[in-house]
Amino acid sequence: MSPIRGPGPPPTTTLTTVTSRPALDDLHAIVPAGGSGTRLWPLSRQARPKFLLDLLGDGRTLLQQTWDRLEDLVGPDRIHVVTGIAHTSGVREQLPDLSHLVVEPSPRDSMPAIAVAAAIIAETDPDAIIGSFAADHVIDDHAAFADAVAQAVVAARTGLLVTIGITPASPSTAFGYIEGGDPLEVDGAPAALTVRRFVEKPDLPTAQEYVASGAFSWNAGMFVVRASVLLDHLARLQPTLHDGVREIARSWRTAQQDLVLARIWPTLTKIAIDHAIAEPVSLEGGMAVVPGRFGWDDIGDFAALADVGAASSPGTIFVDADGLVISGDDTTVAVVGLHDVVIARTADALLVTTREHSQRVKEVSAALQELGRADLQ
Amino acid sequence: MSPIRGPGPPPTTTLTTVTSRPALDDLHAIVPAGGSGTRLWPLSRQARPKFLLDLLGDGRTLLQQTWDRLEDLVGPDRIHVVTGIAHTSGVREQLPDLSHLVVEPSPRDSMPAIAVAAAIIAETDPDAIIGSFAADHVIDDHAAFADAVAQAVVAARTGLLVTIGITPASPSTAFGYIEGGDPLEVDGAPAALTVRRFVEKPDLPTAQEYVASGAFSWNAGMFVVRASVLLDHLARLQPTLHDGVREIARSWRTAQQDLVLARIWPTLTKIAIDHAIAEPVSLEGGMAVVPGRFGWDDIGDFAALADVGAASSPGTIFVDADGLVISGDDTTVAVVGLHDVVIARTADALLVTTREHSQRVKEVSAALQELGRADLQ
Repeated sequence: MSPIRGPGPPPTTTLTTVTSRPALDDLHAIVPAGGSGTRLWPLSRQARPKFLLDLLGDGRTLLQQTWDRLEDLVGPDRIHVVTGIAHTSGVREQLPDLSHLVVEPSPRDSMPAIAVAAAIIAETDPDAIIGSFAADHVIDDHAAFADAVAQAVVAARTGLLVTIGITPASPSTAFGYIEGGDPLEVDGAPAALTVRRFVEKPDLPTAQEYVASGAFSWNAGMFVVRASVLLDHLARLQPTLHDGVREIARSWRTAQQDLVLARIWPTLTKIAIDHAIAEPVSLEGGMAVVPGRFGWDDIGDFAALADVGAASSPGTIFVDADGLVISGDDTTVAVVGLHDVVIARTADALLVTTREHSQRVKEVSAALQELGRADLQ
Repeated sequence: MSPIRGPGPPPTTTLTTVTSRPALDDLHAIVPAGGSGTRLWPLSRQARPKFLLDLLGDGRTLLQQTWDRLEDLVGPDRIHVVTGIAHTSGVREQLPDLSHLVVEPSPRDSMPAIAVAAAIIAETDPDAIIGSFAADHVIDDHAAFADAVAQAVVAARTGLLVTIGITPASPSTAFGYIEGGDPLEVDGAPAALTVRRFVEKPDLPTAQEYVASGAFSWNAGMFVVRASVLLDHLARLQPTLHDGVREIARSWRTAQQDLVLARIWPTLTKIAIDHAIAEPVSLEGGMAVVPGRFGWDDIGDFAALADVGAASSPGTIFVDADGLVISGDDTTVAVVGLHDVVIARTADALLVTTREHSQRVKEVSAALQELGRADLQ
């Protein structure tokens, strides 16, 4: 480009006013970064979980891509990551601009992770809206995601627990579903509906009914809610857990922080947010869903990884064969006469399976344990 | 063992007289060591052919095992190896006691390789019997092999071209067959039969008929014949080739040896011994077959390698899976939901296929050429 600028039209502010999206100044993002992804072994390990991997080969790990999406919405200073002690250094290395990190002394499932972050946020911003987004999901349309979050924030400001449900791309049996009800009719959240119920992973005919009805979304575990509302629900439904996270939050950023966390954390009920809060509150009529019309996947296994567009390593040779071949180095891989194959190589391990057996890869972990090779898990 | 020897029975010669095998003082062994084994890629390469590999993992390469079998019969000084220029150093390293090596300037198939060695042997021992045994075959019973060779030598002393045919273990379609005729009725070669005909690799129903008839052996490419008889057949059937190898042989162990070899070799007809000599001589009634009642395989592909007892690498994990997994290092390999799989790893390449596609592994070589990765062939 020329360094010389000629006369042109005057600067405009058009770029900042193309949408009427409400400001998200009260939104804080919580990113629970947990789970090892045993169905993506040997790429994912207990010491190197899915969220720390660049599974799509595009130069950013899933955690970093989650960061990128959220930083666009709330900036770097309102993102709170909650992760296990084993992954602290990995998270810090990948997110150099992260300022809020909660390190779990042990895994207690998603409710304690989200609740402790919400309680910490509520200490300094009692009106805060929190949005919880897993660290290892893939979303293909940042604008549509941002629009769904903005509508969810508006709905959450009315005191509802709001989830962003994914408009199904297929009758998947790998996800739970959320049945939407009547329109919420809140200004700024035109797509929001009341939630009728959460349902667990269905069988295929049921999933097909759900998708055909148009009333169901995939449960992507994205929750948007005023922090104080979440904590009030928790006080009713899981009072011990509520009291514990409140106590941790009061000590946060004091000299007592680590001691209190170490003392309280092991006493917190190990429970998922769906079971602790979302399901009971939905039955009380306290939940809304904003349908998310974007491509989404939690990359639960290699079949999902192929579906989200992961490409085989360059130089892979298929002779009457096809599938997904991920080779960690420049080893040449040749596949002869196998279709829908899945091959994943690392420096110390090799997996060979097929797309249809992708879910069973988690069984390798138990086999490694039996062989005394827990170092490879 | 104790270094102290107490009084014991006097030495006996029992060990050398347990069989009535005739002396094999006139036998010279020729070992054509050629072929790259593209169906065993990536274990075998052009630069590291099958015969230089320890495919069974028992500590001796196929070439060394061939040497061991023959050294028992003729000693180290009557074994002649013929190999390509690219494999000279590999052969010398693996066979430190080898004293007779012919280095082919270029591959000309089996007839020139065997004929040049036979001509060299005939220069110094006009009555020599030569036995030609490929460098990359597996034989499971040395005593039965030795017995078949001894009978073949006796039959060859009558002026016949003798082959050792393998009593079929199955109706294989991977091998050519030899139809035996009437008993030869030669003292010292009770199993020898006249040869009716050689047949190319049959289809399965034909192979089944052959095996059911009891009259057919597998053609294992083992030929035993008086050197002068072989050369006389060659003079009739391939006169140019005959004259060429005679000229090379006359110059052998003279100052002219390498110059003559370099000048003559490229002019020699590229032809297999089966087509040059065995088939026409069998039709003339000049061949005999000694059935070899031992386990034999030429390990043509990974299915054959599994059949001869190659074991999967230690630590391989099969989850609802089975097959042959050969891992060049201590990488842990897990296979999920695939049966009769074949996996072969080297430092720079990985093959994944199935037993039934073993023959198609040779197609990888063409694909490598297209990709500009001839270095991996």
